[in-house]
Amino acid sequence: MPSYTAPVKDQMFVLNDLLKVGEADIPGYEDLDRETLEAILEESGKVARDVTAPLNVVGDTEGCVLENGVVRTPKGFKEAFDAVREGGWTALDCDPEYGGQGLPYVVATAVGEQFSAANMAFNMYQGLTHGAYSAIHAHGTDDQKQTYLPKMVTCEWTGTMNLTEPHCGTDLGLMRTKAEPQADGSYKVTGQKIFISAGDHDMSENVIHLVLAKIPGGPEGIKGVSLFIVPKFIVEDGQPGARNAVSVGKIEEKMGIHGNSTCVMNYDGATGYLLGEEHKGMRAMFTMMNEARLGVGLQGYAQSEVAYQNALAYAKDRLQGRDVTGAKNPDGPADPLIVHPDIRRNLMDQKSFNEGARAFTYWGAQMIDRAHRNDDAKAMGLISLLTPVIKGFLTDKGFEMATAAQQVYGGHGYIEEWGMSQFARDARIAMIYEGANGVQALDLVGRKLAQDGGKHVMAFFAMVTDFIKETKGRSDAFDAGFREPLKAASKDLQAAGMFFMQNGMKNPNAALSGSYDFMHLFGHVCLGLMWAKMAVAAEDRLAAGDGDAEFLNAKLATGRYYMARQLPMTATHLKRIESGADPVMALDADHF
Amino acid sequence: MPSYTAPVKDQMFVLNDLLKVGEADIPGYEDLDRETLEAILEESGKVARDVTAPLNVVGDTEGCVLENGVVRTPKGFKEAFDAVREGGWTALDCDPEYGGQGLPYVVATAVGEQFSAANMAFNMYQGLTHGAYSAIHAHGTDDQKQTYLPKMVTCEWTGTMNLTEPHCGTDLGLMRTKAEPQADGSYKVTGQKIFISAGDHDMSENVIHLVLAKIPGGPEGIKGVSLFIVPKFIVEDGQPGARNAVSVGKIEEKMGIHGNSTCVMNYDGATGYLLGEEHKGMRAMFTMMNEARLGVGLQGYAQSEVAYQNALAYAKDRLQGRDVTGAKNPDGPADPLIVHPDIRRNLMDQKSFNEGARAFTYWGAQMIDRAHRNDDAKAMGLISLLTPVIKGFLTDKGFEMATAAQQVYGGHGYIEEWGMSQFARDARIAMIYEGANGVQALDLVGRKLAQDGGKHVMAFFAMVTDFIKETKGRSDAFDAGFREPLKAASKDLQAAGMFFMQNGMKNPNAALSGSYDFMHLFGHVCLGLMWAKMAVAAEDRLAAGDGDAEFLNAKLATGRYYMARQLPMTATHLKRIESGADPVMALDADHF
Repeated sequence: MPSYTAPVKDQMFVLNDLLKVGEADIPGYEDLDRETLEAILEESGKVARDVTAPLNVVGDTEGCVLENGVVRTPKGFKEAFDAVREGGWTALDCDPEYGGQGLPYVVATAVGEQFSAANMAFNMYQGLTHGAYSAIHAHGTDDQKQTYLPKMVTCEWTGTMNLTEPHCGTDLGLMRTKAEPQADGSYKVTGQKIFISAGDHDMSENVIHLVLAKIPGGPEGIKGVSLFIVPKFIVEDGQPGARNAVSVGKIEEKMGIHGNSTCVMNYDGATGYLLGEEHKGMRAMFTMMNEARLGVGLQGYAQSEVAYQNALAYAKDRLQGRDVTGAKNPDGPADPLIVHPDIRRNLMDQKSFNEGARAFTYWGAQMIDRAHRNDDAKAMGLISLLTPVIKGFLTDKGFEMATAAQQVYGGHGYIEEWGMSQFARDARIAMIYEGANGVQALDLVGRKLAQDGGKHVMAFFAMVTDFIKETKGRSDAFDAGFREPLKAASKDLQAAGMFFMQNGMKNPNAALSGSYDFMHLFGHVCLGLMWAKMAVAAEDRLAAGDGDAEFLNAKLATGRYYMARQLPMTATHLKRIESGADPVMALDADHF
Repeated sequence: MPSYTAPVKDQMFVLNDLLKVGEADIPGYEDLDRETLEAILEESGKVARDVTAPLNVVGDTEGCVLENGVVRTPKGFKEAFDAVREGGWTALDCDPEYGGQGLPYVVATAVGEQFSAANMAFNMYQGLTHGAYSAIHAHGTDDQKQTYLPKMVTCEWTGTMNLTEPHCGTDLGLMRTKAEPQADGSYKVTGQKIFISAGDHDMSENVIHLVLAKIPGGPEGIKGVSLFIVPKFIVEDGQPGARNAVSVGKIEEKMGIHGNSTCVMNYDGATGYLLGEEHKGMRAMFTMMNEARLGVGLQGYAQSEVAYQNALAYAKDRLQGRDVTGAKNPDGPADPLIVHPDIRRNLMDQKSFNEGARAFTYWGAQMIDRAHRNDDAKAMGLISLLTPVIKGFLTDKGFEMATAAQQVYGGHGYIEEWGMSQFARDARIAMIYEGANGVQALDLVGRKLAQDGGKHVMAFFAMVTDFIKETKGRSDAFDAGFREPLKAASKDLQAAGMFFMQNGMKNPNAALSGSYDFMHLFGHVCLGLMWAKMAVAAEDRLAAGDGDAEFLNAKLATGRYYMARQLPMTATHLKRIESGADPVMALDADHF
């Protein structure tokens, strides 16, 4: 049976030593002193470890069942959901006006990592609700906000996002679901939506569906899409009343996240209420996209983190073979797996990715806080640019690392008994939903790079260049271990950007053929930057004789690993990018 | 519902144009004229497509069930197994003395690819039998061969390989199963074996288990392991007689290959017969290791092949978005996925890998034929060297590519309905069994490189260097597209070998830390070599005005893709290798 322990020490290192949240000039951050933060993370970590993690395998094994139109969640889910709700864990960064705690997003992100690692499928019920909450909070009328938000903050009512239809996912302009205006100002929504996470279940009194649909007579394609609130039970006097004409067609059989009910939802003239403006549904949906996509990136490395924790424990416990340089456990029948260099290589890949990804994600969450709480356009530009990188790179690598962790177990990793297969199967979805990773790459190269005249990518380059300048002459060890590798990687990134500029205008395919590699190249540079910054923070604390020297030295060694063994991927990504469109586009479709 | 079509045209290109099997100076190859080969592959391809492929999803969904000690295979498996058996497909390369057809191994490999792609779990019943057949054929007494082989050639009796125990897989020296000599020359075998593929089932009259066990009083560790034949039913007068004391403890729940019964086998004083010499069980087991591991490498790319076929069909069919350079399907609501550069990038990754892997595997099979049929020590040395590369590299990449194919489907790839998840889940096991890939890397770097004074790796380098010399001045296009990239990649491989020589003696961890990267580096060079050789073959046929020009031009374009976009990975692998032991070994186990 796998287990999960919240990595509070490492989370605190990122929040305090890297991001220095207590000192950041962001409204609400002034309360984030070390003790408060640590108390929150210790407490949420306990709930994750003791309440939701033990249900992870249960959720995978039992799955969700549709019986007589009612979705039943796995045994224990309802009680756990009550416990999470009652602990206030669903309300952390919600608006105090509606019962939230008003904490910064960066805190919700750190707590979210724990819950996502402990039980991804379970945590999605809250995650989807938070997304729907954000949309109503940003675009709802006062009345809508008063009606729905207080109940959604507590997850007494949960939420869903309905975008995909059987024939369209990425290309939502093809959507067929329609919303017909009624005399009372409401709409009748008719159509079928698929892949609706947390679409229905038995853990809340009501489900508030946000549904994209077209109002007849509106503009063609994506410009004619509006967003609607469609409650499972129509709200009357603040209480769930009459059953709406929305039903579950079926629950999908999936590769993983079995604990979450992924539903086909049928809307048969269901009563809906316009959210935001007519035909501006995509815009409304996309206001919270940065957060939603960051949340999915987080799922990627969170699965890698929990998989790593278990693989590490197994590698220390399982005796197999001997250290080639001499027995390390001479009195035992064999040495533990962790003595073997290739097992270490595998574990260090995971560890150095997880810690770098954590830093990158929290840093991104802080940018979102800065954008929202300081109304900082530069921060908004930067996080918009990097959102596809966080989502695409962290979920690709997260799955790769969960798979690598599974490998440590040998045959025991393939059977379901040890739970390692589930981490990989669950992690797999994060590469797909909330915009498949190829679409993230397209967003990055086709849209974000050139946004606002390219000033956000310039700001990113400036940030890296400034850091490299600032750290000049710091020490030979820092230079060799961190500064030089970062410099080389960022040069590769700039060269790739230059290639796109020189070739993308005359042939868009020359840029788009390299988009996926560019997303990964960018991700490596971001993690390289985070590692170099963490190295500075660790060195500074060591120099001050302050903090846990073993932890800080391990941090530095882990960073050196990333810089020496992961970051060099940038050269190969650049080489692929510079090969341009020809290799990719040469074949006619018929000759594949 | 996914489908499979045997890629006979491409298989024939490899066999005829690349390997020129009809002209090869290997006994038995003289009968492999184009017509005969094509007839075999067309016929087996039909069986794979029509008989076994349709049962792939069935096997995954139903799995195998243990009821009252009896294993029931999925619906339709028995009838299909009868059809495969009756078609003679289990006997292709078996010894005519025992009812086999005596065809070269290369033919069995090409047919095996089809059956493995069509239904991997199903094909394993035959595959394990073939492994057991080979062991008995190589090490059995005349009596043992007469007793078991004719029935195993036809798969009327199937076979298994019993190595792993709960506490030991890689490190078989820790084995506890014991075999006590009896007065009649037989042994009583007692112990538990796990992960026994095709361990028991309802498709054959008997199951012939090959079991590794220790004879009490023998040498400690791996040197005291012997191999035994333990039939499910004791054979009496050529017929299955009394039930032996071997039983199925349970069937494992696994991530994939559900159609194969992976059993816990309990031996409770079961009657066994020594196969080969006392205490030489590992040697006996390992005589067929090259074939077995090549067979698993084949499974890796076979799953990638069938996944690719389905992803390609979906990419041509699914309409989503518009070609950025102008609509390709202006009358439809959107363009097919295949117009998008990143979808093509993904498909070309798969296609160029599959075709390169096919060439490499058949080339390896031909080496095995040369080693066995010509008693060619050089060929034997070369295939021993490359076996861990075939196994490790092709299964890692095969899984990666099956996952990539799944990605083409977006959300539809994650639900089980479309079958893409199964390809990835099934492919995953090939990275683990028959020696986990980390063990393959260890075998390559720790054993094979230095074997016989390093002469096999020297022979490989000479082969590449000779090819580069021979093709000098061929054409500018060949130079730029194939020769130069191969030269650069092989230089990286040589540099890595040099690094190991210079550092591995004084610090074995410096070599072993880079073993996994070396295996991949080597794999890329092998596929690069195969692609360059295929390019020569394709160019020659085009120049001769001979053959299907569209096919040959597509082959060249696919090769150029591999050389331009996959082969550059060698530089990153080299960089990692040259970072040596420090990054990998720096942390104490307690500081992970």
